[in-house]
Amino acid sequence: MKDSPLYKLASRAHKSQDTVIDVRGHRIGGDEIFMIAGPCAVESEEQIHQIAERISNLGIPFLRGGAHKPRTSPYNFQGLQEKGLELLRDVSNKYNLGIITEVMDLSLLDQVYPHTDILQIGSRNMKNYHFLKELGKTDKPILLKRGMDATIEEWLLAAEYILLGGNEEVILCERGIRTFDTSNRNTLDLAGLALAKELSHLPIISDPSQATGDRKLIEAASMASLAAGADGLMIEVHNNPEVALSDGPQSLFLNQLDEMLPSFERIATAVNKTCSWNKEPEVIKV
Amino acid sequence: MKDSPLYKLASRAHKSQDTVIDVRGHRIGGDEIFMIAGPCAVESEEQIHQIAERISNLGIPFLRGGAHKPRTSPYNFQGLQEKGLELLRDVSNKYNLGIITEVMDLSLLDQVYPHTDILQIGSRNMKNYHFLKELGKTDKPILLKRGMDATIEEWLLAAEYILLGGNEEVILCERGIRTFDTSNRNTLDLAGLALAKELSHLPIISDPSQATGDRKLIEAASMASLAAGADGLMIEVHNNPEVALSDGPQSLFLNQLDEMLPSFERIATAVNKTCSWNKEPEVIKV
Amino acid sequence: MKDSPLYKLASRAHKSQDTVIDVRGHRIGGDEIFMIAGPCAVESEEQIHQIAERISNLGIPFLRGGAHKPRTSPYNFQGLQEKGLELLRDVSNKYNLGIITEVMDLSLLDQVYPHTDILQIGSRNMKNYHFLKELGKTDKPILLKRGMDATIEEWLLAAEYILLGGNEEVILCERGIRTFDTSNRNTLDLAGLALAKELSHLPIISDPSQATGDRKLIEAASMASLAAGADGLMIEVHNNPEVALSDGPQSLFLNQLDEMLPSFERIATAVNKTCSWNKEPEVIKV
Amino acid sequence: MKDSPLYKLASRAHKSQDTVIDVRGHRIGGDEIFMIAGPCAVESEEQIHQIAERISNLGIPFLRGGAHKPRTSPYNFQGLQEKGLELLRDVSNKYNLGIITEVMDLSLLDQVYPHTDILQIGSRNMKNYHFLKELGKTDKPILLKRGMDATIEEWLLAAEYILLGGNEEVILCERGIRTFDTSNRNTLDLAGLALAKELSHLPIISDPSQATGDRKLIEAASMASLAAGADGLMIEVHNNPEVALSDGPQSLFLNQLDEMLPSFERIATAVNKTCSWNKEPEVIKV
Repeated sequence: MKDSPLYKLASRAHKSQDTVIDVRGHRIGGDEIFMIAGPCAVESEEQIHQIAERISNLGIPFLRGGAHKPRTSPYNFQGLQEKGLELLRDVSNKYNLGIITEVMDLSLLDQVYPHTDILQIGSRNMKNYHFLKELGKTDKPILLKRGMDATIEEWLLAAEYILLGGNEEVILCERGIRTFDTSNRNTLDLAGLALAKELSHLPIISDPSQATGDRKLIEAASMASLAAGADGLMIEVHNNPEVALSDGPQSLFLNQLDEMLPSFERIATAVNKTCSWNKEPEVIKV
Repeated sequence: MKDSPLYKLASRAHKSQDTVIDVRGHRIGGDEIFMIAGPCAVESEEQIHQIAERISNLGIPFLRGGAHKPRTSPYNFQGLQEKGLELLRDVSNKYNLGIITEVMDLSLLDQVYPHTDILQIGSRNMKNYHFLKELGKTDKPILLKRGMDATIEEWLLAAEYILLGGNEEVILCERGIRTFDTSNRNTLDLAGLALAKELSHLPIISDPSQATGDRKLIEAASMASLAAGADGLMIEVHNNPEVALSDGPQSLFLNQLDEMLPSFERIATAVNKTCSWNKEPEVIKV
Repeated sequence: MKDSPLYKLASRAHKSQDTVIDVRGHRIGGDEIFMIAGPCAVESEEQIHQIAERISNLGIPFLRGGAHKPRTSPYNFQGLQEKGLELLRDVSNKYNLGIITEVMDLSLLDQVYPHTDILQIGSRNMKNYHFLKELGKTDKPILLKRGMDATIEEWLLAAEYILLGGNEEVILCERGIRTFDTSNRNTLDLAGLALAKELSHLPIISDPSQATGDRKLIEAASMASLAAGADGLMIEVHNNPEVALSDGPQSLFLNQLDEMLPSFERIATAVNKTCSWNKEPEVIKV
Repeated sequence: MKDSPLYKLASRAHKSQDTVIDVRGHRIGGDEIFMIAGPCAVESEEQIHQIAERISNLGIPFLRGGAHKPRTSPYNFQGLQEKGLELLRDVSNKYNLGIITEVMDLSLLDQVYPHTDILQIGSRNMKNYHFLKELGKTDKPILLKRGMDATIEEWLLAAEYILLGGNEEVILCERGIRTFDTSNRNTLDLAGLALAKELSHLPIISDPSQATGDRKLIEAASMASLAAGADGLMIEVHNNPEVALSDGPQSLFLNQLDEMLPSFERIATAVNKTCSWNKEPEVIKV
């Protein structure tokens, strides 16, 4: 793989310097650590406002929240759909937060596009090449989660599909792979993240919440991610994790996130980076 | 999992008897062994006619062939698209063959639908729940390939999404899972197939070509599949595997398929089933 | 791997014809299907006599039973040790059964050797190369279980260690590998078994009990194994599985084994082999 | 698993405070970062002296080096055996370095014991329960590598076997697990390491060399390990990696290790720990 990668545009051979993507005045890649926080799913007006307010107070620039949720069982909560997207826009405006949310299917792109700053491609779609091609034609940054069964090369080839469409703003996201060990929800592959950084100029963030499935491990997994070279973190927090409609066990309580930021800042210092949440964001409406 | 499965409609508790699906006078499930053969991708008029003619002469009722191909690299052959679908229709008419081909994205459904008897959902789409829901509203049988990273329960839950949409004609297809051992392309999970038969009434076929990636192993893997309880086989054959645009190493030469059928028939006898390729199909135009 | 295997003595290039091992007048490899049955562990005199009697009555030539048991937890039953070995010798004599039991450590070889016809190397020892070398100096047939994390090549290289020591009577045993899917205890790799048969002349048997962990799947997994080319089966049976000290859920009730033999015989016919349990064994004392 | 672990002595319920093991005046566990460096295998007098001298000059307290090497192929270099052990003792004396080396088999314990300060149990032996029991009776600290196919619980249960024997000085070592992704040699499981720290009081170090198989990734993987909570590192270095008899591609050049220490020190600061290589070791002869 390392001798003659199948990807070209995504490779360091094509572009040796780190790609830095600017969204709402925040830089993803380079020497700044980006931060996204928020619930797995938008559940209600009250829930998303409580969470958004706290995130905003911490100076975290981006809010995550699913409106269309891919769920293993059809009998589980599937997301608030369009209503969820509207709530995201509301809190974006009120609290001056950037928004990232998933596009679950090409047919939902028109619905999602106006309400988000970053288009998220979920793990389950990482190998949907028609979808990737079409999203390559859009003009918003794309967060491409690694598939649970994707090698590093396959992940970079998925990015290549998007880059070939003309969209150069691809952010990779490591979120754990599927292995025999189910002690954690997935196996966070940080040496894989380091390898991907070596091979590609694209920024890579880490999602310790999906990877571990366990809020007790978020701090350590986040610190390890940053030390491995991650350009940012996407962390699930909830105003009431114990009654969350999805992913409660892996969601931080709101106050836990506050307490962890200093740890992340110490690692940032150790790797000579600054933190996006210490920087005053520009006021931009979506 | 076994005590209280999350799926309902797909379970034996819901329907204890095997589901038997009739397509063009051939039964999938029950005591008949179904057979699909054909190339990975439709490559040219000459190629698909040569293959279709041979398959038809063997009495094999269904032809497979990809028109839209999901490929790991964007630089590889992506399929003939609409032209490929037209060629499938042509050979279906000329050689009286049923057609199965993949719908790679919801946006391609209208294009694919008229040219195929069975709609194939690829491994990479097994967890695309929006897509599954929408395909559940169609009125043609659906072949649901197991995801490379899907547990048996997740596979049956994916079927549940389709069944809930109203389409009861779901055929499962085991095609190998992804494991540490790359000696074979994937790891054919036949005890998993047997477990799925135990848990669900839906018919299950096996794809030894995708699983092994090696034509030398197709005969043994096919025989094992049938002995494990598979309701049929989907096997890749090519008129010229050595120059195939995709999956050449796992494609049988045309004459190899001829030679294997007696082996499959002996296993069929051992499991008290009959073979669809020994039965004269009805003449039906798509 | 296929072009220039690292193993030599184990390869078809070294010896194209199937190795056939004769133990107590039964042939392992070639056109005869070998059969081993018995409990996971020897638990008591009553238990092993009841099981041995039934196995003997069915004409099954070999009894399995662990005296030293590798257990994941130190708080679980560890086997009857020397007492278990003596019980195995007793029933071997009384019921004219061959014995196979595991050597857990080199330091236990002298204790185990006199009581067994075949020395079993467990999955957990497949990569203990010092142990393999030493067992290569013994003069009894060796059953080499595949490691749960071993590729086909690594398995054949483990055999090579034994063969290099001078012991040419190596029987491979596929018993499932470890994968993300824990629906079954392990993932039975029958295409891997077929590949190993292709690459090596050594006989290979299948252990559907360890692989599936579920007695409901033993019949299908056994039939599939034989259809894939397995030279025999090793199946766990117990006189009272519900109170077994280990592996109860995967152990057949004694009468279940009786009922399955005709299925195995039908597959044997389909693959042009005979069954060792239909052949009157020679009377040999250990 | 988390509710009622099968292990007792290894659990935080049994002992909530971190176990700290003192070897030659260095503490493993607690707030000090331990460091082991050295070649995969002892190859020659010149090689081990060159490496030992440099390691000693850096203030690194322990030297690793295999005398008996478990190798996948019997045709590969198997280690210098007793001669290798003697060389380890020589450099230990000359450069005042602690020694860690593997005991490949119980039968080799007497040979290895006098020449080492820490007894290493390799990944391939992590599930050899007889061996673990016997090593539990020794009085030197034991480094227990995680098996490539071991869950966190199985790893802690392996430690339990040793602890039950009376030896309380068990050091765990994460070295990567086996997964579908072979981009790296193994998949370093740092969230698993964090989980093991949560569940057990035993010290845990990380082996980034075995995990990644690639010297370009050692720095990032080491930093990530320390940030995840690792109590130390074991890193392969070689005086001439390009001609190393084993594991060359993952071995650092001697000068690379020098250059990385400041990075490790910055992470140590971020996690409020000190580094063993900044502390003058006591002069102790083995």
